Amino acid sequence: MPKILIKEREHKIEAPILLTAISGKVRVKNRSIVNEYGTPVAVKRDGFALSNYIEWQIGYDVVKKEVEKFAESSLQETEFIGANGKIKALYELSEYIWYFYKWGIISKEELSDVVNYLNLIQSSDLIDNNPELQIDRSHPIAKNINGFDFEWTQVKYPLLIHKFNKYEIVTEIKITEKQYAVGTQPMLYLCFPITELKARTNLIGRTAETKEIAHFEITESNVGVFLEMLKMFGILSGSHKYDILQIINTILA
Amino acid sequence: MPKILIKEREHKIEAPILLTAISGKVRVKNRSIVNEYGTPVAVKRDGFALSNYIEWQIGYDVVKKEVEKFAESSLQETEFIGANGKIKALYELSEYIWYFYKWGIISKEELSDVVNYLNLIQSSDLIDNNPELQIDRSHPIAKNINGFDFEWTQVKYPLLIHKFNKYEIVTEIKITEKQYAVGTQPMLYLCFPITELKARTNLIGRTAETKEIAHFEITESNVGVFLEMLKMFGILSGSHKYDILQIINTILA
Repeated sequence: MPKILIKEREHKIEAPILLTAISGKVRVKNRSIVNEYGTPVAVKRDGFALSNYIEWQIGYDVVKKEVEKFAESSLQETEFIGANGKIKALYELSEYIWYFYKWGIISKEELSDVVNYLNLIQSSDLIDNNPELQIDRSHPIAKNINGFDFEWTQVKYPLLIHKFNKYEIVTEIKITEKQYAVGTQPMLYLCFPITELKARTNLIGRTAETKEIAHFEITESNVGVFLEMLKMFGILSGSHKYDILQIINTILA
Repeated sequence: MPKILIKEREHKIEAPILLTAISGKVRVKNRSIVNEYGTPVAVKRDGFALSNYIEWQIGYDVVKKEVEKFAESSLQETEFIGANGKIKALYELSEYIWYFYKWGIISKEELSDVVNYLNLIQSSDLIDNNPELQIDRSHPIAKNINGFDFEWTQVKYPLLIHKFNKYEIVTEIKITEKQYAVGTQPMLYLCFPITELKARTNLIGRTAETKEIAHFEITESNVGVFLEMLKMFGILSGSHKYDILQIINTILA
C-alpha cells in the first residue's frame, strides 16, 4: 500500500483504499436489502454496484519493527510504547489526527476532552469487560440430520453499530474470541458507501483493475468522525485505552 | 508439511499434525470446563496440557495446480474433476480411504453404501440448504454505551457436534458466511484429545519445539470413523456431495 497523500495547503488527506485484497484490512461488501448484512463482493469478476460499501478495519499504530507496514507511515519519527511494550509510530487514524492538529483544525481542547473522557471510563465499562457484550453459546439440543446424531448449538457474537449523524459513515464493533486466551476481543470497522471513494474513473458498473487503489478523502468537514473514532477505540479494552492515551500524548507533545 | 507415513505391512497410516501453525488447518485448543468451548493455546509459550485437543480442518482433495500442497499427496497419479471444474488428486481423508480399501480393510460394499446413502440425500437435505442451520441475526436494539448510541445485535452461527461412539473423536461442523456470495458455507473439523498423538517425547507439560510435528495414527480400529466422515462431508453441500462421489469412483476404479 502506498502512503497517504497529504495536501497541506488544502488541509486534505487522501487515504489509499486497496479494492482488490482478498484477505486484508479493506473489503468491498454488498449491503443486502433483506437483512442489512454485508457479503463480500468479487470486484474483479462482478464489478462495483451502488449498493456496495467499504468495510475498513482501520488501524491507529504500527510497530516499528514491522518493516513493510512501518514504511507506510508518513510519521516515522513519532514514537510511543504500546500497551504490549512494543515501540510504535503513528499510523492511519492517529496520523490523520496528527496532521489536523498541526493544521489547527483539531484543537488542543478537543484532544484533552478525549483524554478526560477516557480517564473517566472505568475498567468495568470497557467493551471487552461488558457482561452484555460477551460471546454466548446456546444450550446444546439433540438433532438428527440425515441419520447422524448431532448436538446443535448456536454461537452468538455481539455486533455494535454506530451511525455518525449527518455522515454516511458507520462504525461496526465486532466481538470475537481472543486468539490465544480466554475472553473477547472487540474489533472496530469503519464502513462507508463506495460512492464516497475517489477513483481514477467512476467505479459503479465496472470491474476492478489489478491491485486497484481508490482514495478516501479526509477533510475539515469529516475529521470530527475520526476524532470520535479515537474515543471509540479507547473504550474497546484496557490495551486500546492505554494506546490511545499514549497516542494523544504523542500528538500533543 | 511432510507426506503421510504409510506402513503397508502393519496397515497403518501416520498423518503428520503440525502443532505450531498460527494460521493453518491444525490448531491446538484447550477445552474449558465451564462452557466446553475451545480456546487456542500458545503451545510454544504455554506448553501442552491434558485438557488440550487438536482441531483439524481435515481436507479430502488437492487441486493439482497448487504445487506446494499437491507435493504432499502420496497419490499424485490419482485424478478426478471437482465440482469447481478443477483437476484434483486424492489427499488426506481420501488418501487414507484409498489405502485401507487397497489393503482390503474397507470393502467395496462399504464404499457403495456411502454412494447409495449420498444418492438418496435430496438437495433440500444438504446442510447448507437446511433452514434450521442458517446464520441468524437478532433484531437490533438501541443501547447507549459510554455515551455512544449503538444498535446492538447478535449474529448467531450454528455449530453441530457429532461424537463417534467408542472413540475419543468428535467432528464439529461450523456454519459461516460464504466468502463471495450470499449463503452459508459449512466447514468440518475433526477434534481429538492431544493424548491421541504420537510425539517424539511426551507432549504433556512441555512446550512445543519450532515447527514441531506429531503424528495421528489411522489403523483398522479407527478407520471406520474416517469412512463416516466421508459421508458427513458429502451432506455439507452440493459441491461437497459431488466431490465425494467422484472420490469414491476414483477409489473404486
